[in-house]
Amino acid sequence: KIDRDRLWRDLHETCEWGKGERWGEGTTDIGMSRLTLSDADKQVRDWFVNTTESLGCKVQIDAMGNIFAVRPGKKAGPPTFAGSHLDTQPTGGRYDGILGVHAGIEVLKTLNDNKIETEYSTGVINWTNEEGARFPISMVASGVWAGAYSLEKAYGLVEVGGGKATQKSELERIGYLGSLEASYKANPIGAHFELHIEQGPILENSEGKIGAVEGVQAFKWFIITVKGKDCHTGTTDFQNRSDAMLTAAKLILHSHNKAAELGCLASTGILTLKPGSTNTVPGFVQFSLDIRSREDQKLLELENVLKSDFAQIAAEKEVGGLNTLGTRGRGCTVEWQLDTDSPATKFHEDCVKCVEASAKAMLGTDAGGKVQRMTSGAGHDSVYTARHAPTSMIFVPCRDGVSHNPSEYCSPEDCGNGAQVLLGAMLRYDRL
Amino acid sequence: KIDRDRLWRDLHETCEWGKGERWGEGTTDIGMSRLTLSDADKQVRDWFVNTTESLGCKVQIDAMGNIFAVRPGKKAGPPTFAGSHLDTQPTGGRYDGILGVHAGIEVLKTLNDNKIETEYSTGVINWTNEEGARFPISMVASGVWAGAYSLEKAYGLVEVGGGKATQKSELERIGYLGSLEASYKANPIGAHFELHIEQGPILENSEGKIGAVEGVQAFKWFIITVKGKDCHTGTTDFQNRSDAMLTAAKLILHSHNKAAELGCLASTGILTLKPGSTNTVPGFVQFSLDIRSREDQKLLELENVLKSDFAQIAAEKEVGGLNTLGTRGRGCTVEWQLDTDSPATKFHEDCVKCVEASAKAMLGTDAGGKVQRMTSGAGHDSVYTARHAPTSMIFVPCRDGVSHNPSEYCSPEDCGNGAQVLLGAMLRYDRL
Ligand SMILES: NC(=O)NCCC(=O)O
Ligand SMILES: NC(=O)NCCC(=O)O
Repeated sequence: KIDRDRLWRDLHETCEWGKGERWGEGTTDIGMSRLTLSDADKQVRDWFVNTTESLGCKVQIDAMGNIFAVRPGKKAGPPTFAGSHLDTQPTGGRYDGILGVHAGIEVLKTLNDNKIETEYSTGVINWTNEEGARFPISMVASGVWAGAYSLEKAYGLVEVGGGKATQKSELERIGYLGSLEASYKANPIGAHFELHIEQGPILENSEGKIGAVEGVQAFKWFIITVKGKDCHTGTTDFQNRSDAMLTAAKLILHSHNKAAELGCLASTGILTLKPGSTNTVPGFVQFSLDIRSREDQKLLELENVLKSDFAQIAAEKEVGGLNTLGTRGRGCTVEWQLDTDSPATKFHEDCVKCVEASAKAMLGTDAGGKVQRMTSGAGHDSVYTARHAPTSMIFVPCRDGVSHNPSEYCSPEDCGNGAQVLLGAMLRYDRL
Repeated sequence: KIDRDRLWRDLHETCEWGKGERWGEGTTDIGMSRLTLSDADKQVRDWFVNTTESLGCKVQIDAMGNIFAVRPGKKAGPPTFAGSHLDTQPTGGRYDGILGVHAGIEVLKTLNDNKIETEYSTGVINWTNEEGARFPISMVASGVWAGAYSLEKAYGLVEVGGGKATQKSELERIGYLGSLEASYKANPIGAHFELHIEQGPILENSEGKIGAVEGVQAFKWFIITVKGKDCHTGTTDFQNRSDAMLTAAKLILHSHNKAAELGCLASTGILTLKPGSTNTVPGFVQFSLDIRSREDQKLLELENVLKSDFAQIAAEKEVGGLNTLGTRGRGCTVEWQLDTDSPATKFHEDCVKCVEASAKAMLGTDAGGKVQRMTSGAGHDSVYTARHAPTSMIFVPCRDGVSHNPSEYCSPEDCGNGAQVLLGAMLRYDRL
């Protein structure tokens, strides 16, 4: 049995590095702002290295700053890992990523406390820049390990918001550009288990306690650029406009309608326009489009129909009721740019079963509907480990499904449940 | 007859102060960036004062920095003015406002050259901050003169974009906080004629040469705030979202559809959202809504229907086909804030007739459809002078109806036509 109090205490202690916004009265009601490779990230990394070394682990750092702490087992061979990330969103919470790493360390402590010798070695991974919030590709360092991105591409990423630092220069600056090759070939993983808050409302709404994650849905991120023509809002009648903002509004609504029709998701989280004056019709709008589906085929279907419909809608043709009621103008053009392409991931059935069995063992007679197989709506480093190693994830509920927000919250009970299931799953897999 | 070459030469000479972006090969194919009360604005103001004084005018500056240059006539009494503005948008052109002031000076030069004595005095006004681009209320200084805004409110306006300067501190800094009271009572105007580029495509599209402006349509500017809830784009199904961006898209489309139905205009030129991340559904969107109509009553009708419909649409109720095709979520709230309220303005029939007669005299047998009565889609300082003095405006075509853009263009022929009609209208009114 893991020590639930110790887990809770350690987790909140390390959240002193990179503290964010206070959102409540409690001592731990404070969000996190620990961008990857920042000074605060260096502090928590140093803590991670010191702690795992003091637990008897051999610690290695690869060329992407990924940290692998390994506790020796009886036999040689790739370790069974718990992996997650210690970096956060700029206005993030205390559980997304952080819980998974702390639970892994709690597993190691429990193994030590109980003097358990595993068949193969076990360990904990802290992946670099899972969030993609500072250097703008999420899961980029596990992606390099998996061969999905080149080291050059990852090194060259420049921080968002106008700064000059690159992912490489910051790895060097904080002393975490390691000598180990960032590659599944040079540094194979035996299995990867990732405990994470669900970041959505499904478990909470259905009174589930543990999600045994079977896979991750497919997603693609696009930047859509709508080009029209600036003109005066007061002197230009509708017929003579090429209104990029009105067009963007139609496209965003249509992406929602079509996604709903096809059982997919579509969301716009960023929108910028030019020139940005109350009495100038914008000639330029750019917005993000994040589309998701459990099936690659469905996602492609949605992408294709939107590509064709967007062009028609922007050209003021009648599609989906969007150019029926108003006055048609002169039309705009639409450009698509693909930024992220993450196909649907299926986790390894052996690993999913280890999670399920471990959850049922913990919950006992209570288990029933409280253990649920589910598909992750969000991407995680496990997407990339799954390409080269048996992988699964463990989800625990978070309050109101809220994540990427200072007020993100996972109760001590749920944190403890997650770590307990992680221990059980890792031991089961090790024996397997 | 005014001197068309002199007008063109003088106008482009003073455009050296506050030069903007080059957009073409020609020597004058350069936009303007002469924000009100900037150093460049001081330079052109000094030129205005020196030039009009050298033409024999008495020059007075009021507490808002409005400059009144008066050429004495035979009798005492309020002068017949040509008025416009020398300030520009940050990425503006060489004709919006500037043409009206230069044409006024060309009128004075022509009167001097021909030794014409007018019945009453005549003059030229340079109004401060017509654009509202730096201190964010347009036509604010003529508004103070007319009693629509208090001096305190106008003085207190802080520059947009994070600076600390106020309209008062900048008036003082450049030495244009004058001693004359900014008031139609202390400083009455006999009549006000404003030559301006149309800023829209109507004249150009109908081969019109001169617009005799009968009035200005009503407009209101609102800031609409949509509040929902941030959530993860990948883990939150449509039913569990309060998507402020999707809601804003529906509202913008609906404002267009309803405005088209009622024969009004509706436009969104600014939109900001939070938190602004590809994989976070925005919980907060704010956008500008600029609505316009020739009739106050129609504008109110549009405002009222949008107020009620926006609330319904945000609450996921079925209105105007906007919540029919997609998946309904948990709804958002909508708040309205009124920023500018400019009721419909009717100009003085005497003044409109002076413009018409002067245009017909200039165009001769050619006049026919080339002189058109029209309503201004945009607000101008004439909106405020019309409250206390007979007023009309003269419109000339500008290429493609483009304005508030470096490439704004009015041909030498059209500039000259406008100044010629301004002279004729002022003389006709003076005799009246
Ligand atoms: N967990 C998470 O937010 N990952 C980032 C990629 C995604 O949006 O799914
Ligand atoms: N001429 C002009 O752009 N005036 C500002 C107010 C308006 O947008 O109508």
